[in-house]
Amino acid sequence: MYPCRKTREKLLLGPGPSPVESRVLRAMAEPTLGHLDGDFVALMDETQRLLRKTFATENPLTVTMPGTGSAGMEAACVNVIERGDQVIIADHGVFGRRMQEVAERCGAVVIKVSAPFGQALPEEELIETIRRHPEAKLVGVVHAETSTGVLQNLDRIAPVVHDAGMLFLVDAVTSLGGMEVPVDRLGLDIVYSGSQKCLGCPPGLAPLTLSPRAVKAVQERKTKVQSWYLDLTMIMRYWGEERFYHHTAPINMLYAFNEALRIIDEEGLHRRWDRHRRNAEALWAGLEAMGLALPVAKEHRLPSLTCLSLPEGIDDGQLRRELMERYSIEVGAGLGELKGKVIRIGLMGSGSTANNVIFFLSALGTTLNRMGWKTDVGAALETADERFRD
Amino acid sequence: MYPCRKTREKLLLGPGPSPVESRVLRAMAEPTLGHLDGDFVALMDETQRLLRKTFATENPLTVTMPGTGSAGMEAACVNVIERGDQVIIADHGVFGRRMQEVAERCGAVVIKVSAPFGQALPEEELIETIRRHPEAKLVGVVHAETSTGVLQNLDRIAPVVHDAGMLFLVDAVTSLGGMEVPVDRLGLDIVYSGSQKCLGCPPGLAPLTLSPRAVKAVQERKTKVQSWYLDLTMIMRYWGEERFYHHTAPINMLYAFNEALRIIDEEGLHRRWDRHRRNAEALWAGLEAMGLALPVAKEHRLPSLTCLSLPEGIDDGQLRRELMERYSIEVGAGLGELKGKVIRIGLMGSGSTANNVIFFLSALGTTLNRMGWKTDVGAALETADERFRD
Repeated sequence: MYPCRKTREKLLLGPGPSPVESRVLRAMAEPTLGHLDGDFVALMDETQRLLRKTFATENPLTVTMPGTGSAGMEAACVNVIERGDQVIIADHGVFGRRMQEVAERCGAVVIKVSAPFGQALPEEELIETIRRHPEAKLVGVVHAETSTGVLQNLDRIAPVVHDAGMLFLVDAVTSLGGMEVPVDRLGLDIVYSGSQKCLGCPPGLAPLTLSPRAVKAVQERKTKVQSWYLDLTMIMRYWGEERFYHHTAPINMLYAFNEALRIIDEEGLHRRWDRHRRNAEALWAGLEAMGLALPVAKEHRLPSLTCLSLPEGIDDGQLRRELMERYSIEVGAGLGELKGKVIRIGLMGSGSTANNVIFFLSALGTTLNRMGWKTDVGAALETADERFRD
Repeated sequence: MYPCRKTREKLLLGPGPSPVESRVLRAMAEPTLGHLDGDFVALMDETQRLLRKTFATENPLTVTMPGTGSAGMEAACVNVIERGDQVIIADHGVFGRRMQEVAERCGAVVIKVSAPFGQALPEEELIETIRRHPEAKLVGVVHAETSTGVLQNLDRIAPVVHDAGMLFLVDAVTSLGGMEVPVDRLGLDIVYSGSQKCLGCPPGLAPLTLSPRAVKAVQERKTKVQSWYLDLTMIMRYWGEERFYHHTAPINMLYAFNEALRIIDEEGLHRRWDRHRRNAEALWAGLEAMGLALPVAKEHRLPSLTCLSLPEGIDDGQLRRELMERYSIEVGAGLGELKGKVIRIGLMGSGSTANNVIFFLSALGTTLNRMGWKTDVGAALETADERFRD
């Protein structure tokens, strides 16, 4: 038995989970209530109102799914897709590919449009593909690709999807709460996220919102949803006035999520997005001042997650170990094609602070110097610091 | 905003969630770690060892699924069943029927054997059905039927299932941690539970164990598991030495679960089972001394959950409201065919105490008297109290 094991704190600057504020942790530790308890049901109602604000949507069907972000992806797919449906799913990283895989397991015929890791999607090709397959039911795109740190702009794609009469399915796992997810502005139809990224809650819940058009598609299904656990036709009755018993909701996770959403509401969405943007830009400036390369072009970079190319001769595993052992900093390894070539640095939720940027740049620069890759840490810190004075 | 909403405590004596000890709540509030963090991985290893002890099994594949109990049911079904498979699933309540429904959504041809609500399964008929369908892949049975409080003895069924070369799938949501679940003793092949019943953890995790025979069946599948999120062929690689990234584990839920299992280990399984048994028998004696009827025959009663028939003229909703409003006691309503006819009283995990039995009998007796059904509360309390002196 290791009684202290659960108490060693790390600074979570990886691709998620992100640091959780003590207010949220305390809320999570409050006494468990029943899933049909009046006070708990009131907390669900408030959570739903706050979640609509965070998604910037009026969608009545805005809930959390009882699982981590991938459960959100699976819920999005299983509820809308029926066996034999054609769907167009674009990938520019691991999570787009995962969405294709999940859709295939729902029995969909998946038409794929791909971009290399580190780049945004080829919009012309995607638009052309949508026009060539008028019978497709939906178009799926990852808004914030957690494996590469690439942001996919949706402004041009959304109207094409809707003109074609298709549903637009969007993965906002790493964007929601850290930047605009234009749910109502662009009429995104099915959008899911994860609690543990820019929302600042521990992992375990997947926020999900469906446009009335998407709800109609779910209600008009000819076959049952293949997942009983994630079946929105029942879950919406639990979140609705009927309070129909479906599954036992993860009560304490919802306390935490409710508190995380209150914190977001207190800060204000736009201020929160600005904070994520400002700190990311300072990080980028500092990294580039050290002579390091960012593989993603600036206009496609996520404010919440930055991919950093490893300099020649710097071993990925050793660098991450040094950061953890000396500074208790967690960053992420590369995934898929970027494995061993990059580290992923997250500035998400309460982790996106000027102090974390300064501390991380210091720790990284010092470590790289120690590993033999010489850089001027002081100059880089000054460059980053200037950004905060803008 | 209701800043106090999350702090009003209730005494959870319903069908789950059960009361959570403060040690578990505190563990859950410890700082979030990454899902591939070394300290977290060590906690997973320890959790796995403790979970094997709790399941009384040597099964290497013993994990928690990242969802509530119904996710355990779905994981059990989707991983073993392929489209077109024949399966035999028995029902003696809501959860057996749910298992049939989940199996059907996996594409199984489900052969059903049923018992009325409140009774155990017709063993002869089930055994006969197994013999008549040698091509069936598995037999599914609910060990502890949460909708009725009926315990299904598995001793006679298990050898028949195995002689027929089938897998034995068992729902132990309301039994694990509160009474013996004979995983290795009877060679049960796929067994799942929920964190929020007799294990004393908040809802959000589904413990699951598979025999080597069941693992082989999963590995020899011809088709992919229809759920990506619950696909054990990948999840076992995350829990195994490889630490293959699948989904982001619900970190803080696992802290809580680890602590709950430590508490079970400290108490000792047999002592814990005895405690649940002793308190349940005192409750039954007290209820019967009040002249109340228990619809389940004594030999089929669960120690963790008791169904109580409502006396003539007592309204279910009003009784539960009175218990909640006056005493902050939560009990469960009847489900399915028993709706409006019974209440369900849970004595699970840390909720199974002599004090809770005495307090509940007092509150119930007084409330019934107030509602016009006259009973001698003092005498009933004496009857229950005697049981604790045995």
